[in-house]
Amino acid sequence: MSKTRNGNFFEDFRVGMKLRHATPRTLTEGDRSLYIGLTGSRAVLGTAETNARQLGFERRPLEDLLVFNTAFGKTVPDISLNAVANLGYAEVRFAAPVYPGDTLAVETEVIGLKENSSRKSGVVYVRSTARNQHGREVLGWIRWVMVHKRDHAAACGEAVVPVTQAAVPAEQLACDGYDARIADITTMTGVADLWDDYAVGERIHHPGAMTINDSDHSIATRLYQNTARAHFDGHAMAAGGGRRLVYGGHIISVCRALSYDGLENALSILAINGGSHVNPTHAGDTIACATQVVDKIDLGQRHVAGLRLRTIGVKNAGTQDIAFAEPGQGRPTHPPEVVLDLDYTIAMRSPGQFEHALLARAKADMVAAALANGIVPAHNVCLNLKDGDVVAADARRARHDFGFLRMWSIYPAQILPIVNAMRPDFTEVEDAAGILVAAQDADWGPIQYQGELHDRATYRYFWEVLEKAKVTGMTLPAEADQRFYGR
Amino acid sequence: MSKTRNGNFFEDFRVGMKLRHATPRTLTEGDRSLYIGLTGSRAVLGTAETNARQLGFERRPLEDLLVFNTAFGKTVPDISLNAVANLGYAEVRFAAPVYPGDTLAVETEVIGLKENSSRKSGVVYVRSTARNQHGREVLGWIRWVMVHKRDHAAACGEAVVPVTQAAVPAEQLACDGYDARIADITTMTGVADLWDDYAVGERIHHPGAMTINDSDHSIATRLYQNTARAHFDGHAMAAGGGRRLVYGGHIISVCRALSYDGLENALSILAINGGSHVNPTHAGDTIACATQVVDKIDLGQRHVAGLRLRTIGVKNAGTQDIAFAEPGQGRPTHPPEVVLDLDYTIAMRSPGQFEHALLARAKADMVAAALANGIVPAHNVCLNLKDGDVVAADARRARHDFGFLRMWSIYPAQILPIVNAMRPDFTEVEDAAGILVAAQDADWGPIQYQGELHDRATYRYFWEVLEKAKVTGMTLPAEADQRFYGR
Amino acid sequence: MSKTRNGNFFEDFRVGMKLRHATPRTLTEGDRSLYIGLTGSRAVLGTAETNARQLGFERRPLEDLLVFNTAFGKTVPDISLNAVANLGYAEVRFAAPVYPGDTLAVETEVIGLKENSSRKSGVVYVRSTARNQHGREVLGWIRWVMVHKRDHAAACGEAVVPVTQAAVPAEQLACDGYDARIADITTMTGVADLWDDYAVGERIHHPGAMTINDSDHSIATRLYQNTARAHFDGHAMAAGGGRRLVYGGHIISVCRALSYDGLENALSILAINGGSHVNPTHAGDTIACATQVVDKIDLGQRHVAGLRLRTIGVKNAGTQDIAFAEPGQGRPTHPPEVVLDLDYTIAMRSPGQFEHALLARAKADMVAAALANGIVPAHNVCLNLKDGDVVAADARRARHDFGFLRMWSIYPAQILPIVNAMRPDFTEVEDAAGILVAAQDADWGPIQYQGELHDRATYRYFWEVLEKAKVTGMTLPAEADQRFYGR
Repeated sequence: MSKTRNGNFFEDFRVGMKLRHATPRTLTEGDRSLYIGLTGSRAVLGTAETNARQLGFERRPLEDLLVFNTAFGKTVPDISLNAVANLGYAEVRFAAPVYPGDTLAVETEVIGLKENSSRKSGVVYVRSTARNQHGREVLGWIRWVMVHKRDHAAACGEAVVPVTQAAVPAEQLACDGYDARIADITTMTGVADLWDDYAVGERIHHPGAMTINDSDHSIATRLYQNTARAHFDGHAMAAGGGRRLVYGGHIISVCRALSYDGLENALSILAINGGSHVNPTHAGDTIACATQVVDKIDLGQRHVAGLRLRTIGVKNAGTQDIAFAEPGQGRPTHPPEVVLDLDYTIAMRSPGQFEHALLARAKADMVAAALANGIVPAHNVCLNLKDGDVVAADARRARHDFGFLRMWSIYPAQILPIVNAMRPDFTEVEDAAGILVAAQDADWGPIQYQGELHDRATYRYFWEVLEKAKVTGMTLPAEADQRFYGR
Repeated sequence: MSKTRNGNFFEDFRVGMKLRHATPRTLTEGDRSLYIGLTGSRAVLGTAETNARQLGFERRPLEDLLVFNTAFGKTVPDISLNAVANLGYAEVRFAAPVYPGDTLAVETEVIGLKENSSRKSGVVYVRSTARNQHGREVLGWIRWVMVHKRDHAAACGEAVVPVTQAAVPAEQLACDGYDARIADITTMTGVADLWDDYAVGERIHHPGAMTINDSDHSIATRLYQNTARAHFDGHAMAAGGGRRLVYGGHIISVCRALSYDGLENALSILAINGGSHVNPTHAGDTIACATQVVDKIDLGQRHVAGLRLRTIGVKNAGTQDIAFAEPGQGRPTHPPEVVLDLDYTIAMRSPGQFEHALLARAKADMVAAALANGIVPAHNVCLNLKDGDVVAADARRARHDFGFLRMWSIYPAQILPIVNAMRPDFTEVEDAAGILVAAQDADWGPIQYQGELHDRATYRYFWEVLEKAKVTGMTLPAEADQRFYGR
Repeated sequence: MSKTRNGNFFEDFRVGMKLRHATPRTLTEGDRSLYIGLTGSRAVLGTAETNARQLGFERRPLEDLLVFNTAFGKTVPDISLNAVANLGYAEVRFAAPVYPGDTLAVETEVIGLKENSSRKSGVVYVRSTARNQHGREVLGWIRWVMVHKRDHAAACGEAVVPVTQAAVPAEQLACDGYDARIADITTMTGVADLWDDYAVGERIHHPGAMTINDSDHSIATRLYQNTARAHFDGHAMAAGGGRRLVYGGHIISVCRALSYDGLENALSILAINGGSHVNPTHAGDTIACATQVVDKIDLGQRHVAGLRLRTIGVKNAGTQDIAFAEPGQGRPTHPPEVVLDLDYTIAMRSPGQFEHALLARAKADMVAAALANGIVPAHNVCLNLKDGDVVAADARRARHDFGFLRMWSIYPAQILPIVNAMRPDFTEVEDAAGILVAAQDADWGPIQYQGELHDRATYRYFWEVLEKAKVTGMTLPAEADQRFYGR
């Protein structure tokens, strides 16, 4: 009848075992306020309702690492209460936004076990999944953790070590929900740097630093209902000659908050590819970090692309000495001041074909060449098949910003928005009609029309205008219609 | 015209005096988040909306000790601003759940006064009541506190010492609102231990421990708008050779949160029968606790029963040495590491007549004996007269889990649910008809029916099935109906 | 392509430059809870929904300094990231209440620049404005801050030093939204002191004191998304031989919370006229404060008036030695224990013409004199032209509390409420009729009526009653009507 809950030891786990963690947890605006108070998070989507709505969301989602730490905390009593160390993460995938009022329920499957040669402990590999109250997966992750054995003599099975991906591949990154409005983020942050402005290998210096206080990390860890004793039991830690450890997830949150400066337009985290808590942090330590751009990822999305980043956090040290050595197969060698080495992928606004400077130059060159050679410049297709507004916006930009006169459609629903956008506006058609009538009267010699000079170079353009007006069904001024189309 | 608010001194109180405390306080989800962050509370009903709704609540109530500490804090400026020590609590009664958005207004009546022989101070006994915005009492308590005299020479009246109950009696414990759905709590906590699994005298070891940080307790105490100077004014405490004291209510909250492990299925606190802050706690101290089951209480409720518990909290010490000595009339003698001795009553799911192992065995024995002796086993009555679903659920369990063939009704509304539940399902009636027709053909000798052997032992059972189908109005298979009932 | 955000240095500012700060911030009940937890605020309007509604608000506004500190925090990355010191505030004007769910967007204009003679830094003067999501200004302020130069050799323009007001003038103080219901505040706080009870020059002793913990101030400062390094980077501060500084805005909040005792009925802050953080505060310091009433301000409002206050905060010292020296043009000389000198204006219930003791005495004298001389006492006008309830309430008080028999109207809409209020109630008319009929029968000699003695002194009064009933159109008892008015 013992009610003593000592958690699971290494020999209690079996590969394939599933654990449903106690209990689901509802997150609210109160949790967000506390998260901001504990970390200083300034993430744009979480900071203001107005931000979220202007950027195309119905309301502001919760901060991604608040969600991660809450879900993670749920697994501690079953997985890592008897942990020696949390060794690593992989395939952490943020599948859907979580909103205030949502409830997270977390389940875990044991996917690997490997006893240590000392036979005193072993490594447990688990895959955990957090679902919202609608049963939708919002977060999934793999972690491996070294867990004590209760009985060193206990026999354990063959080692099963799962293969994990070095990085969550682009096709598994979930970043729906960003539409064209996401471009407005720069007006909120006041910073222009977008996806295009980050280069692989570039190093980003984050100027802030944050001293971790005892209450900061323990309030955070309690908020996540994480019960790992090393964070709370100062008496036992002192008896063992040590001090309470700061929960590693709090360090991730702090580094993410510090990394705002230099990554202001970062949207949500899409994935954590890997991470390790290289050295422990204690209260009183001051955390700082630097980030390197590891990769730029095309997500096959119209408005956002991925940046794979590596953020290294240090304690009580400047960030200028942080070395971004290539990660090998094993744990990278880090000096003792390094506390975190995190490899993750964020979403950021990609400028798109119209904003990218090189693409824009190419389009402009093409239009100029086409017109110079009497060819009608036709714009390439828009890949969006569903949203007429997107098609229309592309067509308008092609027409007005670049001078394209036609645009390819690849789907019936695209035709009308393109035709409407390409259709000249009525005053332009009136001008075209007036200019061409006057030109014909002048036998196609130079004329002056409303104070501007015109000749064959512009007649050619206005002829296109009139032609397009005609074929798109506009009513032409009577004189021009009669002269050039015989009605 | 002095605006200096120095609080009441012992000689300012009169028995019968009523005080309305400033000001009412609205509690919100923000307060809950902070409460979880400060204490690590994992109480099931407070942790998730989904939990609360599955367990039969419209939404999740606030944590009971958040309510208690908030209401208590309101009384401090009027009652204990000049306290020497908070001596004890009695008859703390949680009368109704409090929800986010509710506003607590608190009033106090002075019910006793006793000057100390030193004439420098005296004990003030008060009864306080917190009501919600609808005027409904949600919490009431008695406490007694030693308060300084302003003027040692002031004359004070005769001592009036109120008699308090040693424990809030069962009939005064309010635990409405729990229906049959409360049984689902075990699926949330993953722990099976319910009321029935706790024995009087049993000791529960709570494995966690929590170091109290300066900000933890002072944020909590400010959240409760408790203004007692000993918790906040470090300068004055140091001038007196001491240090800021941790508010005792925070220690109760921390011990309650730690006691989750071993009492996972505890529902709300119904009452605090008595409690004392045996020794002071300071920032840096690590709190741990153990609990003893003092009594098991029948609340006259269908779904929940009471557990009277005694939780003893210690600082900077293991819990294995905690001694649960019998409380005498006076203050129990505790070693210096003990900080809290709390006697309280919680609600917990009681298994009910079907879940209780001994009752279940008795029912099974009875059904077996009845059938063996040709008697139709009839189940005892269901006491619920109003809720047809409860009657039906009981009847179904009686029928399907135990094999009862009849059940007594004690109220007209019970008849239909019982008849429906007891009515055999149609496939069973078909089998009964087929088996009995074949048996008659075999002159009631053994037969084989759909690969199973049957003889008179089972014919008797299937005869009952057919009989019940007949009397409850089911249409029998024609052959059997014709042979045995002549139509 | 550098992403290093080092903030603006002195030579980066230009007079007239406008900065839109990143990013807007939505405040919620969660932020309020944390604000209460961090400061112990007990402000009446923020503490309970019931308070706010009874006092005439739809719901409870957010605490004024939560709004101020949040808005201020937004300006730090652009204005004071490279600050040497925050020198002062002026013209801080709280223009409209902010409610949970509101979003603040903050903009700043540089209004002055003055290089220091050392040429290593200069003073930047800015005017900042916070607007809510509807574009309405909720808060505006001027501050001046000493900012490092990046390049000491950089040439800077002529000094421009703006003239600021010594105090926000009454006509610029916004305190709409308080109606007659605000009088109920005294039933919430249990304290009777209102505007009228405070005297210019009076000193208010606030008994509380609060030790600042590391997490307290750093959580608060992060909640405000204030990124000033001196509050967070303990490592860098130690390297410079110092310690992290407590954000000055937190000290203002703490002093405001401590000042509740003695200023319980204070409503919102209307303005901060000026303020300076005289000496730094570090974690571990204990803050206490005292307040002096500087001025009493008629706001031209019916229900509230202004109190200009000066609150001086000290660290690790008693408040009895705080000296309220006259502020000169320059910074007042303060001893090293003073940390804050704040000059601000709050709104407080003004008793109004009926509650003010002197006015009430004058009214009573006037009625007595009028009646004694056979003159009908007529009450002066009510200035409210719009709200019939206010007019009616005034007329009822004039009639019932003071015995006025008429009241002047100055606007057609006032007539009906005045007539209704002045009209005697029916039982009084019945008594008047009965008494006068009996008196006439007794030939105006003394009579006894329902056990009370009456004579000419009271006949005169009852005649007025009957007359008023007649002229206001009431149906008189038949006998009296017939005798005295001939119908």
